[in-house]
Amino acid sequence: MDALVNELIGRVADKWTLLVLEALEENGETRFSALARAVPGISQKMLTQTLRQMERDGFVHRTVHPVIPPHVDYRLTPLGHTLGEAFCSVWHWAEAHLDTVAAARADFDTRD
Amino acid sequence: MDALVNELIGRVADKWTLLVLEALEENGETRFSALARAVPGISQKMLTQTLRQMERDGFVHRTVHPVIPPHVDYRLTPLGHTLGEAFCSVWHWAEAHLDTVAAARADFDTRD
Repeated sequence: MDALVNELIGRVADKWTLLVLEALEENGETRFSALARAVPGISQKMLTQTLRQMERDGFVHRTVHPVIPPHVDYRLTPLGHTLGEAFCSVWHWAEAHLDTVAAARADFDTRD
Repeated sequence: MDALVNELIGRVADKWTLLVLEALEENGETRFSALARAVPGISQKMLTQTLRQMERDGFVHRTVHPVIPPHVDYRLTPLGHTLGEAFCSVWHWAEAHLDTVAAARADFDTRD
């Protein structure tokens, strides 16, 4: 079981997965283009890859609208929402400890 | 502030950081060689790099023992422990949703 859990942790503990998760939590169903704007610094290729992986893992539902021009929407699945909730404490931790980490880095860089 | 939080999230949401964090939580102060054994699949180079980054971020304290042969111990700092706590919910999530994700992947792979 440990190896499977480690593999899943390694999969979800990923910067782009977390930022896409956050954007979908905040914006609800979102088009690819809007997601690309909502996740600072992500390339088109990385967003495509991340969304595909999240869809495969069951975190994201993909809807293709057969209109002209066709467009694709993404939204979180119930499983995706549970992952978002699990990471809430990590987001709060990051907000609460920004300065402590910055101070540790400054101290390390002067020592090093 | 968002960019700083995203950067820190991107830093800590990292497979090897999480696995080293977990190993230090479970084993307390640990030598490099023992850590290498406790984190399955990690290379010497990656463990060195991850520990150095965790030390810089203030999550890990490094003690060099000036004996013959010299050895180095690592342990979590109080800040490191708070990060471990923040990720508890993610570990529990992974254990609880292993099967759901496996089923989603199997379904995606047959559809794809």
